[in-house]
Amino acid sequence: MRDLSPLPGALDLATSIRTGERTARDVVEATLETLSSKDRSIHSVTYLFSEEACRQADAVDALRKQGKTLPPLAGVPFGVKDLFDIAGHVTTAGSIVLRSNPPAKQDAAVVQRLRQAGAIPVATLNMDEFAYGFATENAHYGTTLNPHDTSRMAGGSSGGSAAAVAAGFLPLSLGSDTNGSIRIPASLCGVWGLKPTFGRLPREGAYPFAASLDVVGPFARNVSDLAASFYIMDGCDRIPEPAVAGSWETLRIARLEGWFADNLSKPMVRALESVCAALDVTRTVSLPEVATARASSFLITAAEGGNLHLPRLKEQADSYDPATRDRLLAGAMLPADTYLKAQRFRRWFREQIHAVFRDEADVLIAPAVMGEAPRLDEPTVTVGGKVVSARANLGLFTQPLSLPGVPVLTVPVLVSEGLPLGLQLVAAPGCEEKLFRVAWHLERAGLAGCRLPKSAA
Amino acid sequence: MRDLSPLPGALDLATSIRTGERTARDVVEATLETLSSKDRSIHSVTYLFSEEACRQADAVDALRKQGKTLPPLAGVPFGVKDLFDIAGHVTTAGSIVLRSNPPAKQDAAVVQRLRQAGAIPVATLNMDEFAYGFATENAHYGTTLNPHDTSRMAGGSSGGSAAAVAAGFLPLSLGSDTNGSIRIPASLCGVWGLKPTFGRLPREGAYPFAASLDVVGPFARNVSDLAASFYIMDGCDRIPEPAVAGSWETLRIARLEGWFADNLSKPMVRALESVCAALDVTRTVSLPEVATARASSFLITAAEGGNLHLPRLKEQADSYDPATRDRLLAGAMLPADTYLKAQRFRRWFREQIHAVFRDEADVLIAPAVMGEAPRLDEPTVTVGGKVVSARANLGLFTQPLSLPGVPVLTVPVLVSEGLPLGLQLVAAPGCEEKLFRVAWHLERAGLAGCRLPKSAA
Repeated sequence: MRDLSPLPGALDLATSIRTGERTARDVVEATLETLSSKDRSIHSVTYLFSEEACRQADAVDALRKQGKTLPPLAGVPFGVKDLFDIAGHVTTAGSIVLRSNPPAKQDAAVVQRLRQAGAIPVATLNMDEFAYGFATENAHYGTTLNPHDTSRMAGGSSGGSAAAVAAGFLPLSLGSDTNGSIRIPASLCGVWGLKPTFGRLPREGAYPFAASLDVVGPFARNVSDLAASFYIMDGCDRIPEPAVAGSWETLRIARLEGWFADNLSKPMVRALESVCAALDVTRTVSLPEVATARASSFLITAAEGGNLHLPRLKEQADSYDPATRDRLLAGAMLPADTYLKAQRFRRWFREQIHAVFRDEADVLIAPAVMGEAPRLDEPTVTVGGKVVSARANLGLFTQPLSLPGVPVLTVPVLVSEGLPLGLQLVAAPGCEEKLFRVAWHLERAGLAGCRLPKSAA
Repeated sequence: MRDLSPLPGALDLATSIRTGERTARDVVEATLETLSSKDRSIHSVTYLFSEEACRQADAVDALRKQGKTLPPLAGVPFGVKDLFDIAGHVTTAGSIVLRSNPPAKQDAAVVQRLRQAGAIPVATLNMDEFAYGFATENAHYGTTLNPHDTSRMAGGSSGGSAAAVAAGFLPLSLGSDTNGSIRIPASLCGVWGLKPTFGRLPREGAYPFAASLDVVGPFARNVSDLAASFYIMDGCDRIPEPAVAGSWETLRIARLEGWFADNLSKPMVRALESVCAALDVTRTVSLPEVATARASSFLITAAEGGNLHLPRLKEQADSYDPATRDRLLAGAMLPADTYLKAQRFRRWFREQIHAVFRDEADVLIAPAVMGEAPRLDEPTVTVGGKVVSARANLGLFTQPLSLPGVPVLTVPVLVSEGLPLGLQLVAAPGCEEKLFRVAWHLERAGLAGCRLPKSAA
């Protein structure tokens, strides 16, 4: 019987294939079998590329037999949020209204780069319709469950991508983040996730949502894999060896206070404290007008998303997920003045955070969410002492940091008991490498990492 | 008695000062006296910098006495639309709501560059309030009249800048163009005007209107002066000698047909034909979706202008020119969807016109306005056989060409009788130099140029 145990990391897998310990075909088949047999418990997958994946795996194995040097991620299976084009496949973006589109002619740009590095797309993964949500509750494709507690939310909109990696089904996956859609599911599912600098990774072939905020990025089970996949998607020919280099001690690290210190669960307060202690953080930094930053990010998203979808909503509103439809329609009715005010504020806010990175810190630490994943049957969080909708408020800490386009890495804090908790590490534009250094230290120090769900362990 | 005859061109003046034929002080005093005594007939000036200008002129003359090399425009007087900052002076932007602002601490960037080149700002010039209009009918500062027929419109919003140069009061002036505010008054007053490539000249210190469309540019009485002032404002250390070089024969020149061939007066049709004949133009080019381009430019202007002014309109709407106020309020109420649709269309339209410049032509020729300047007491034009508001429709041919950010040079065609008529020469972004070559040929061939108003001749 085939080994269905959780997969090792992406770089480890690539090594075992390169050294001949395993064949790519074996890895891919095992992955497909895991996804087929086990995913029904969390519902992260929407489609499996079984045949194409096996063909690509055979090509990797054939290369090796010929004695050729394998590319750095050769044979590593990965999944994509179902808004990345995969050649020959219809990209649904979690909707049914795109189902009759022609199949994509080519892979999305970042998928192309990963495939050129030898990685093999094996599945599309569930999401909120058109990426508009923090829940991955999809009226057409079902709800993705949190692998650590299937009565709880996986978070969204890249919930399938986070859950499949958290469950140990896949070593690597891709998501997109407009207001928190990588960071929130990574936090609730307890995996590493990276929202890169706005504009750094190519978005060609990724179905858009809000053009001035969308970024694409990876989920992984360890920091080296996260960094490796990022560097490949960033266009590097090879992965730095080691994938993360340089010390964290030379970095100025500070904790975000004010807005980012309120509304936290007790475990989250402890998680933040333990991480700050491990990094010798004594400095705090305060960002101005965070509430306006959050509102601006939300308004820009609503207006741009509404604008993108209004022509189709006029024709086939009934085919939309009701939750998405109503948000998009509301966005389409926003005044231009509101939109321009938000963009104007954004320029100002960006200058403020750039000044912080220039004068005060290299890396900022903040919570990614208030606490653990909300229950699916009671989807609420507490903000300002009031019980409010989780779907509308899970972005409390991620939305303000979307606005300035800075890179954010989500850290899965290892908590002694209870569900995963995620922190945000934030750097200046283009400084992902600093984030990897801090994350790697937390991983090595045993403070953060991906543990397997109890059900799988 | 001082010589009050029309001034020679800017470069000629600079030469006569450099050679000692005239002093800068003499030139500046003569200009100030002309403006004081004669401007009441056309009302182009809103403020004279008499003392500062004389001081700067004396400094030029002192430099010359010391045997120093004079900068290229030393002693040349010029005027600015009253939205350019002049150090020590309150910039009103044609309004009364800015009157209590503190004086500008420094010159606008392009004024700085001209001043460094030795040119001397002598006056601010009238405009539509906040640059929102094609008429230069200003409720606070009065109406600028067309020097060629004072019963007719000068055009706007940079009407004072065009009229002062057309009247021969100034060799050079600055304006701004969002939807046609340089090109329309240049055409109606019969002077050379340049709307440079969007983003090429710095806008610092020029009061904004619609941030994604505004450009600043010069008016002049001949092509060499126009080119020289442009190069100085573009940051060149020295003016090329001659200011315009290179032949026009190697350029692919085409005439815009379709939208740009309709609604023309008979004299305009003849003007276009004579210019095309002189340039051996046989090719025509058609732009797609011109009506949508015009609408998009208008909508973006309305939304951005409305957004800029709404906070102030909420406080002191009664202090605005009613014509401007109502347009700004309407713009502030546009939906974000409309704005984003216009910006989306703009990206597409820009690609279309770039393809034309790549595949079909280097320079396009189009009318700038339908015909001669409308009467002030009957401010109408005829579009589609209907008599419509001049103020709302004078931008018929300029608005669509604002959208893609391309440079446009306005050519004052020399018509045998009747009022001035202006054409647009259009090039790819950054290709102002091609426009100068074509314009210079038309000037040398006697087909275009600045004639003096009969009253002044």
